Amino acid sequence: MHAYRSHTCADLTAANVGETVRLSGWVHRVRDHGGVLFIDLRDHYGMTQVLCDPDSAVFAQVEKVRAEWCIRIDGEVKARDASLVNAKIPTGEIEVFVRDIEVLGGAGELPLQVFGDQEYPEETRLRYRYLDLRREKMQANMKLRSDVVASVRRRMWDADFREFQTPIITASSPEGARDFLVPSRLHPGKFYALPQAPQQFKQLLMVSGFDKYFQIAPCFRDEDPRADRSPTDFYQLDMEMSFVEQQDVFDTIQPVITGIFEEFGGGRPVDQEWPQISYKDAALWYGTDKPDLRNPIRMQVVSEHFAGSGFAIFAKLLEQEGTQIRAIPAPGGGSRKFCDRMNAFAQKEGLPGMGYIFWRDQGQGMEAAGPLAKNIGPERTEAIRQQLGLEVGDAAFFLGGKPKTFEGVAGKARTVIGEELGLTEKDRFAFAWIVDFPIYEKDAETGKIDFEHNPFSMPQGGMAALEGDPLDVLGYQYDLACNGYELVSGAIRNHRPEIMFKAFEIAGYGEDEVRKRFGGMVNAFQYGAPPHGGCAAGIDRIVMLLADESNIREVILFPMNQRAEDLMMSAPSEPLSDQLMELGLRVIPQE
Amino acid sequence: MHAYRSHTCADLTAANVGETVRLSGWVHRVRDHGGVLFIDLRDHYGMTQVLCDPDSAVFAQVEKVRAEWCIRIDGEVKARDASLVNAKIPTGEIEVFVRDIEVLGGAGELPLQVFGDQEYPEETRLRYRYLDLRREKMQANMKLRSDVVASVRRRMWDADFREFQTPIITASSPEGARDFLVPSRLHPGKFYALPQAPQQFKQLLMVSGFDKYFQIAPCFRDEDPRADRSPTDFYQLDMEMSFVEQQDVFDTIQPVITGIFEEFGGGRPVDQEWPQISYKDAALWYGTDKPDLRNPIRMQVVSEHFAGSGFAIFAKLLEQEGTQIRAIPAPGGGSRKFCDRMNAFAQKEGLPGMGYIFWRDQGQGMEAAGPLAKNIGPERTEAIRQQLGLEVGDAAFFLGGKPKTFEGVAGKARTVIGEELGLTEKDRFAFAWIVDFPIYEKDAETGKIDFEHNPFSMPQGGMAALEGDPLDVLGYQYDLACNGYELVSGAIRNHRPEIMFKAFEIAGYGEDEVRKRFGGMVNAFQYGAPPHGGCAAGIDRIVMLLADESNIREVILFPMNQRAEDLMMSAPSEPLSDQLMELGLRVIPQE
Repeated sequence: MHAYRSHTCADLTAANVGETVRLSGWVHRVRDHGGVLFIDLRDHYGMTQVLCDPDSAVFAQVEKVRAEWCIRIDGEVKARDASLVNAKIPTGEIEVFVRDIEVLGGAGELPLQVFGDQEYPEETRLRYRYLDLRREKMQANMKLRSDVVASVRRRMWDADFREFQTPIITASSPEGARDFLVPSRLHPGKFYALPQAPQQFKQLLMVSGFDKYFQIAPCFRDEDPRADRSPTDFYQLDMEMSFVEQQDVFDTIQPVITGIFEEFGGGRPVDQEWPQISYKDAALWYGTDKPDLRNPIRMQVVSEHFAGSGFAIFAKLLEQEGTQIRAIPAPGGGSRKFCDRMNAFAQKEGLPGMGYIFWRDQGQGMEAAGPLAKNIGPERTEAIRQQLGLEVGDAAFFLGGKPKTFEGVAGKARTVIGEELGLTEKDRFAFAWIVDFPIYEKDAETGKIDFEHNPFSMPQGGMAALEGDPLDVLGYQYDLACNGYELVSGAIRNHRPEIMFKAFEIAGYGEDEVRKRFGGMVNAFQYGAPPHGGCAAGIDRIVMLLADESNIREVILFPMNQRAEDLMMSAPSEPLSDQLMELGLRVIPQE
Repeated sequence: MHAYRSHTCADLTAANVGETVRLSGWVHRVRDHGGVLFIDLRDHYGMTQVLCDPDSAVFAQVEKVRAEWCIRIDGEVKARDASLVNAKIPTGEIEVFVRDIEVLGGAGELPLQVFGDQEYPEETRLRYRYLDLRREKMQANMKLRSDVVASVRRRMWDADFREFQTPIITASSPEGARDFLVPSRLHPGKFYALPQAPQQFKQLLMVSGFDKYFQIAPCFRDEDPRADRSPTDFYQLDMEMSFVEQQDVFDTIQPVITGIFEEFGGGRPVDQEWPQISYKDAALWYGTDKPDLRNPIRMQVVSEHFAGSGFAIFAKLLEQEGTQIRAIPAPGGGSRKFCDRMNAFAQKEGLPGMGYIFWRDQGQGMEAAGPLAKNIGPERTEAIRQQLGLEVGDAAFFLGGKPKTFEGVAGKARTVIGEELGLTEKDRFAFAWIVDFPIYEKDAETGKIDFEHNPFSMPQGGMAALEGDPLDVLGYQYDLACNGYELVSGAIRNHRPEIMFKAFEIAGYGEDEVRKRFGGMVNAFQYGAPPHGGCAAGIDRIVMLLADESNIREVILFPMNQRAEDLMMSAPSEPLSDQLMELGLRVIPQE
């Protein structure tokens, strides 16, 4: 017989009754029923009930085992009484009478129980991660993550992509976030950097003639911690294709994503129609470039109904250039209580408040209520109602000013309204491509033009587009929104050096600086660069959505805490002075 | 029609004759045949011949293209004359008459030709890697690497393993080589380290209840460069299993490795029988712990034939303790010329020389020649011949002393003899498990006992074995040798804290220091650790063997040069002073 097991703890069924078996696993729970000891023995695969009575030669040894000891038992498989069958687990028809036992690994007092649902502080969970990971939910989350990544790979291979590993110790490439630096020992005073993303390398791969690349790529950004972000590294499905346009990338990645959500979404419906919404429309309709389309609310411009109206605040606002009034329709929100609560929400978010109208019927037909309705009068109120398609029992909220000043809050209000009114369909995955991002934005304070997103995207209209107003230039740049999260981001790249230099020039970067910052890639573009594009999908984010987790640390095996520390491994730590010496570095004493 | 291509450059056959097609790719070569321009248009998939004559409306444009320009052409598929069919390529039956052309990416003068077999200095190849990678051999090597890794994953999944990603930014864990350090911004003066291997994490995964783990894992070691080693990082197939013994690991990994070599070995035979050879026997028989078993030569101890013999050097040597005389049989090496050459080889390697005997027949029956034979006389010479099973035309070489002093050279001599005499079967993959490694070794100078290999292996015999002479303790530790290279290394781990502390104590490390250096893992072992073991296989090495390359840079996309520099991306480079400031570091000026 094998030294440790003849079966796993999920294998045995009524068919094994009478056999002598060997099992290894952890003591999940011990119960004493009138002198008979019942142990739930657990391994990675399942649970088996084993028992021992005082007649057994090893009873004294079995009596000593405690929760989370790792043990090996030999025993005889017996059928359970019909009344004791547990139909919920595959081994529920049998139990194993212990004839021999060996303690493979004992355990001291546990800082964290594996059995049960007790909650523990995150610091405890991370310090004793090996115990935390034994818990049912964490085992399930980690298996899910592993299976998702495996399925992504299979799907990409099936789509004729090859996975290539790009360098992890490489050059600093300022792409927005801070680099992690790695001091060089052979070149003291010089540093490598860990890649924020394989952006330049995947583009170099296209220039190298590889047609379809993907990688489950670790990305490193030295960012200030946040609950939904790892402070050190995260994983992306990174992909790139040559000789493609934007729609080709969409057609390639959509079946991969829908496939994954169908395979692992636990039966939750997965939208097959993915609308393409311009960045501008997304801001108008949803107040965000990552809208949650499970929420049916779409905002509308209602400026005309307030221009010159009796509601002086809005009427005056509209006299300024670039202002608008927008409405958030709230079907079913037609009560003063709800409307006041939403108004308070807007105030908490830093706005003066949200005006509202709601429609009710107090026995005398439909009536528009709320201060706004009075100020603008019944005709304008009715025109608004008709534009928004609202009825008795519904409400509408109004925000005004320059869109940038209120759009964000409007988006949040839309989310809260959708959720509070039960309009947002839970348990569904809704996707939208956000397209036509502007290439540039103007800094509100300095008036300086800078890249809005990513300097590597091809401007729509190419060189000619760059001759006009930079703020009108749109890029072949796109994001995929899912349930309010940005899941994918990508672009058709600017592969023409002359257009790239011009694009950087507009943002104030001379050719020299571009060559210095992105020299590897820009040089390569001068030797027959193909048109290419691609995208990157956040693996951690996908798994979070599938596992219904809002904390990224629930889907990472050994995450850092929010101070970017690994408590279990004691990282970061003070280096040996020899190490610093070899690297030619000195630590500046902190005050 | 698609903006860039209706077909790839490998797609078109006689079945497409008459169609109007669109192709994109690189100009591999342009030939002018009496005014008609022939272009070999190349993409990732293949090559298609396109042509243009002066009657074409776009002739003037086609005339301008040069090697490695990226172009798009539209044209008509025509059958080639039977005499011009190229049976070597799939598109060899057709050619495409160009009707339209677009330059997608032009190219300046090339620092390196893609077409042809010209050799370039490695610095040029690495600086213009995107051109180098377009060459046929590099495309093939990178595809091979990608396909090998994909196949490894498929095979591990099929064996019920799950892949898990372990942290890349983590704690320093001295495992022999130097760590790469990563300064922490949030904790100035403290450093993370990049993992030399996921050793501790994979063991923690076993303690966490995951049963079968693997990972294609990047490993980071700050090592001095060598031709067959990357100076920064390399990839391993890392795997670990719970509740296993050594043979279980062998039975799991052998089909994966043989499968890969059969799938990608180009038909070269792959040994199915993998002998298990003890470390001691490997040293004796082959002079190395990574023997090349394609070479049939096996060394033997022949001390008895020299003890008290007339060959004074050996006879005297044998009077010292711990000395031996070993023979390298050399079937077919029976000429003075060959023997002298081998003797010179040994001298070049730093030994006084290698004695030899060879057997010849100059018409008077078998005769033993060489100075040694004379010294020890015919009886002893004949006894040696019989022990080694040699005949006329064969030779034997002799080395003596303490085995450690000559074993290495003996191993090299065996290799040279095998190759020069044509005994080593090329084009075959021969494997052997090397087992029973000693846990400890004694430093020849200091007499100090230290770990021979890896402090995490379980000693054979457990705690009891540690009570005796440390130098007698063998470990459940193993390597896989293939064609003279170490391909895999692994162990059954020491999962019992009390045995681990004892093992470290013997090597002079107190409990405190063990807790400090390996605290994450040692603490975990106190909470129900399962018996576990595994191994790691070198991906770069496997691909090198399959691609028949001896330089690791031929199987890595974007490797560092031998000074650990990336010339294309300019890494490492000087940091911005802001970056150093944020990290609380100062560079010590070099003298």
